[in-house]
This record gives sequence, C-alpha cells and structure tokens, in this order.
Amino acid sequence: MEPTVTITRRGADRLAAGHPWIYRGDVDRAPAGLRGGEVVAMKDGRGRFLGKAFWSARSKIALRTLTREDVPVDEEFFAERLASAVALREAAFPGEPSVRLVHGEADLLPGLVIDRFGDVAVLQTLVPGTETRKQLLVDLLWDRLRLRSVVERNDVRVRELEGLPQVKGVLRGEEPGALEYREGAARMRLDVLGGQKTGAFLDQRENRLRAGAYARGKCLDCFSYAGAFALQLAGRAEHVTAVELQAPAAAQLRDNVALNGLQNVEVAEANAFDFLRDASEREPEYDLVVLDPPAFAKNKDALPAARRGYKEINLRAMQILKPGGILVTASCSYHMSEALLEEVVLDAARDAGRPAQLLEKRGAGRDHPVLMGVPETHYLKCFVVRLP
Amino acid sequence: MEPTVTITRRGADRLAAGHPWIYRGDVDRAPAGLRGGEVVAMKDGRGRFLGKAFWSARSKIALRTLTREDVPVDEEFFAERLASAVALREAAFPGEPSVRLVHGEADLLPGLVIDRFGDVAVLQTLVPGTETRKQLLVDLLWDRLRLRSVVERNDVRVRELEGLPQVKGVLRGEEPGALEYREGAARMRLDVLGGQKTGAFLDQRENRLRAGAYARGKCLDCFSYAGAFALQLAGRAEHVTAVELQAPAAAQLRDNVALNGLQNVEVAEANAFDFLRDASEREPEYDLVVLDPPAFAKNKDALPAARRGYKEINLRAMQILKPGGILVTASCSYHMSEALLEEVVLDAARDAGRPAQLLEKRGAGRDHPVLMGVPETHYLKCFVVRLP
Repeated sequence: MEPTVTITRRGADRLAAGHPWIYRGDVDRAPAGLRGGEVVAMKDGRGRFLGKAFWSARSKIALRTLTREDVPVDEEFFAERLASAVALREAAFPGEPSVRLVHGEADLLPGLVIDRFGDVAVLQTLVPGTETRKQLLVDLLWDRLRLRSVVERNDVRVRELEGLPQVKGVLRGEEPGALEYREGAARMRLDVLGGQKTGAFLDQRENRLRAGAYARGKCLDCFSYAGAFALQLAGRAEHVTAVELQAPAAAQLRDNVALNGLQNVEVAEANAFDFLRDASEREPEYDLVVLDPPAFAKNKDALPAARRGYKEINLRAMQILKPGGILVTASCSYHMSEALLEEVVLDAARDAGRPAQLLEKRGAGRDHPVLMGVPETHYLKCFVVRLP
Repeated sequence: MEPTVTITRRGADRLAAGHPWIYRGDVDRAPAGLRGGEVVAMKDGRGRFLGKAFWSARSKIALRTLTREDVPVDEEFFAERLASAVALREAAFPGEPSVRLVHGEADLLPGLVIDRFGDVAVLQTLVPGTETRKQLLVDLLWDRLRLRSVVERNDVRVRELEGLPQVKGVLRGEEPGALEYREGAARMRLDVLGGQKTGAFLDQRENRLRAGAYARGKCLDCFSYAGAFALQLAGRAEHVTAVELQAPAAAQLRDNVALNGLQNVEVAEANAFDFLRDASEREPEYDLVVLDPPAFAKNKDALPAARRGYKEINLRAMQILKPGGILVTASCSYHMSEALLEEVVLDAARDAGRPAQLLEKRGAGRDHPVLMGVPETHYLKCFVVRLP
C-alpha cells in the first residue's frame, strides 16, 4: 500500500477537470518523511480515492497523476504504458526509426521523455518519480526495442526545479558515437551526447516535411539552426537561403548541407530580424518563407514583447513574399497560444495589406501528442499561410 | 468608371479589419437603379476609395469585396484570380484531377464555387455578380483547363437569398454522363447532374485519406453517406461497419463497396445515435471510429441542442473504443467553433473517464482554404484523438 496524500477541494476539482497535476498549495496533508519519487495514493478530504501519483518533494508541482484507477504501479504498469506509447508511433509512423517515443504527461508517463534514433534511445528523467526508476525504465526499453545504446541527456534546466543534478552519459549498451538520421530524403548529423541538446527537434519533423512539399523557386529559412527546414526546402526549391546567427549552429548547418551534397543552399550568418528587414526594402522575391524562431515568450510577462517580435517577423515575411507565396510560421512558446498566434498573423496580413489564406493549422508531430484538458502539453503551433 | 456606393463608418471599420462583406445596414448611399451583379466602387463618408465589390440587390450582404485596389475589374482580373486559385491546387495536390478549384471568398472570388473531377467542372454561381458573368467564367475555365464538360449545380438554397432561380445543366461541352473518381486507392461513382448535390464532399478528402492511414482491426464509420470514409478505412481494416440511415445514400454506399470489390465493409442502415448507444452497451470492440455527422447546428439558436448531440456521439464513440483506439471526429457546423468542439470532445472524455490524446486538429482540405479574419470561411473541423 502506498502512502496517502490528502488534497484540497480545489486540487480535487482540478483532477476532476482532467488535469494531472496538483500544486503544493493544494496538498492538504502528506505523511512526514515522504521522499521524492514515491508513488502515493491521492485522496480528497472525505477519504475518497482519486488516483495514484508521483510525489515531488521540491517542485511547485507536488503530484503528477499516473492513474485514476486503484491499480498497482509496478513494473507491469510501466511496461504497459511504454507499450502503448510505442504502439502510437508504430501506427502513426510505420517503419520510421527516428521518433519521440515517450512524450511525458501526454503519454501518461509524467517526467519521462524518450527520443529514438534507430538503435539509439535518448532518455530524460525530469522528475524524481522517473529518476529513481531510471534503471527499470531503461531495462523495459531495452527488452522491447532492438537497441545498441541508451543514453541520458539529463543536462536540462528543468531538472533543477526538482533538485536533480545535470548529467549525461551512457545508461546501457555502447557509446553511440556520431550518428546520422534521415528526415524524408535529407540526411542529418547528430551527436546525441556531444551537442547542445540533441539538436533534432523532432517535434517539427512533420512540419518540415510538409514545408518541403510546398517548396519552389526562391525559399528563405529563418532561425535555421542546423538547417532541418532548409534541407527539406532544398529538395524542390531552386535556391534556399538559411539564416542562422549562432556560429556553432551555422557550422552544423554547413556540415548538413555538405553531407547532402546540396548546391542550392546558401547559409547567411545573420540576425533573422535584420535579414528580414533588409529584404523587405527590396521588391518581393521569395516564393516561400519559414519562420521557426526560438521561444520569444519564455514566461507570461514576456508576452507583450514576444507578440511584437512575432508580429514583426511575420509582417516582414509577408512583405517579401511574391503573389501566391507560402508562409510557414511557427511558435514554440507555450504562452503564445494558437489563437494569439492566429491574431498576430492576421494583424501582420492587415499591415501588409494582403489577404491571407490559412491552408493548415498544424501542431507538433503526432509523436508529441497533446493531452486534452492539459494546455501545458500544447506548445508548438505551425501555420501554413498563402498570400494570393 | 463604376457606380459609387458610400458605406458607413462601421462598414469601413469592418473592411479595415479584413472582412470582405458589407451588410445592407452599412450601406449609406447607393445610386438609384443599381442592379444586382454590378461592380461598384466602395467609398467612405469622406469619399475615400475602399475597394471594389459585387453589388447584391436582395441579399442581407449588399457588397462582397473583390479588391482593395483601384484596378479594373475586367476579364483579365477574373482570369488572374482563376489562375491563382488553380496554382494553389497544383502546388498542394500536384497531378490530382479531383479538387475544389475555386472556394468563393477564400479564393477572392466571392459567390463562385468550382469543383473539378478530371475533365468535368461543376460550377456554382451563388451571387448576382458571378451569375451575370457565368459565361465569361465558363469560357475562362474552358481556356485554362482541358475539359470536356462544364455543368452548373445551381440548385442550391442559398441562391434564393439572392433571388436567383434553382437550375442545373450543361453550360459548355457535352453531357458528362456517369463519372467515376478516385480518392487514394478508392473508386467512387459520381453523378454530377443527377444526384442530390454531387455527393463528393471534397472538403473531407484529406481527412478521409488520413483516417485510412490510421485504420486497423475493427472500424466504424458513422453518418457514412456514400461511404467515402468507409472505403478509405477498408484498405487497412479487417472489418468496417458503415452506418447510414437514408436508403438512397445506403444504396450508393453499397454500390461503391461493390465497385471496389470490398468484402470487409458491412452496411448498417440505421440511425447512428441508436447504433452507437447499442454498441456502447457491449464491451469496447472498435479500433477506430469516424464521426462525420451532418451539421447539427444550422444556426446559432440550434447550438445548445447541437452541442448535446455532438457530446452524445463523441461520448458513445469513446465508450466503444478499445485501449489505443482512434477517434476521428468532425463537425461541419460553422456555429460549432473549433474551440467549442474541442470542449465537447474533452467533456465526453471526462464522462467516459478516459484521458484523450489529441493527435491532429485538422480542417477542410487545402483546396478549401480559410480566409484569415473571415470566420465564415472556417466551418469544417476534424480532430484525430487517441484513447490510450
């Protein structure tokens, strides 16, 4: 039997609304000496069972729901959750070797993120509940998939909120070494242990492939990072300019361009805002523009400034697109909601004096599902807009 | 020079916000004897030019904007608009013979709808502006595309608001006769002049192909009509039940099943509400359920009842889905907004006691674009939800 944590009425209401988190302020009573990572039974003030959850001792989020049912949370429980997550990817991307296998809460595995690149898995255990069960999770993964290496990339800031250290390294199998993975026809280099993050940003994969299908003529990829959008555009475009300010990313970008033997991709080491402003002083010359900026709004307070930033780049992009041109515009800021981004893009279209056809409202790839009722799991928006 | 219509401040604000319609109440002054279908110049109270528009003498919508620029609205104007519309379809669906070629306002051609099925085009001229230019539009279409037949399906209720008669027939070329068109691997019969509407509902085509990609095991297609979803599901499913209440549609459905030589599609001539309720009394047995009902909310007043209807079918569908099952749930009611549908589906998931992963928020196909800032052009919503 798990220890019992009693939660407030407000907390119980939150659970009833479908949200899996209980904040510390909604913990009414917890046993003394409860350790981070333990699985507890949640009850309301009348002693009614509400579910089982991971306990966190330090984070503002004290409880993360694992199940609403009174079932054992044991090895079999995690094996089944993992199997369900794998099944979704197999259904959505049959035969695809590189996917996000587990997407935390949205796969009912809070605090666990696993990316797979062929026979290498990259694990993040972001809460004590998954951190203390790391070995179990690695073993389950190893048994289920044909892997040669499982590594952890637990050098992420969010772990500090839980009092967990910054670590990375091999958890099982061999050193993965330098990897290469494919996105459509494009080859990309990947250093799962060396690089800043893995750099793969699989959440945009489906959007990148889609952007590639629209590509033609002269294309522009802003905030290009390692060039994943640019490589897709290059397949059908005559010419692609990939704009990236940071020298290490630009070097990676050039490396990926060379790896694919592309002659039609030009790398511009520049600030995308400046590049767009300069281009907007010339006649419209682009057939397609991609805007995939880093999160401008890291928190709610940053939203007004972020809104101005998104507005500016979208307006500039519209000003440099030829008639019939396509704008692929994304935001990965959770605080910039889909409705808000739509407002900003419309606002930009009005300022540009151009009608705008919304062809697609896309989100993160289907290996990054959104858990309904949990807005925190909906962060990536990507619109495909045509300017007739 | 076109006649001038002066519009109110409120009307001018509406145009400035990007909306293309002026209601009759926002017409300040119009010349006597102005005839429906004429192109007029719109000006504000100070005589400033705001754009050119089709005048309607009877509809509540008096003016439909054609352009914000002071350019001639002549044959070349319509030829260019048509060319832009065709270019979008060629970019989005290279080589696809069956598409909506022109989607009214969203293609900056208000009151004009054109569907293409290979060498047959089906035209609707829904306002006097396009009705009086029907011959020009047909000729432009004929010159641009390789067609053997252009027909009109102007037997639609909405024309009554404009005082236009209900007509259908051949406008140019030969009688089209019985047609067949393809959707992915599926063949579908089509009678563009005989049937109730053309029955093709091209707006759901991309969603049907997507649903087909998720299909497996036991699938259910509710409100199946001529079976377009069911045919896609049949490609990967072991068994598909297609539920359709209306006998003529069910006959078409059986005909399409036979045409494709399918052994795994069963037609149930039943009310989908009843079918779902009965199925929900058994153990969950389905791997995928499609809900593609007719518009429950034809107007705003019908919304509360419609909401209950959508809730009921979504709840039942969730109750009959096995773990890991997929729900493809659509609404074509304009009054049922995307946000509202999301709320209803979440509400159903709570009642079903199941977490729900939102994999995709889809809309109408890209040959049915949404004009940003014009909510009336966003009517079709289609979510792909997984129940882990």
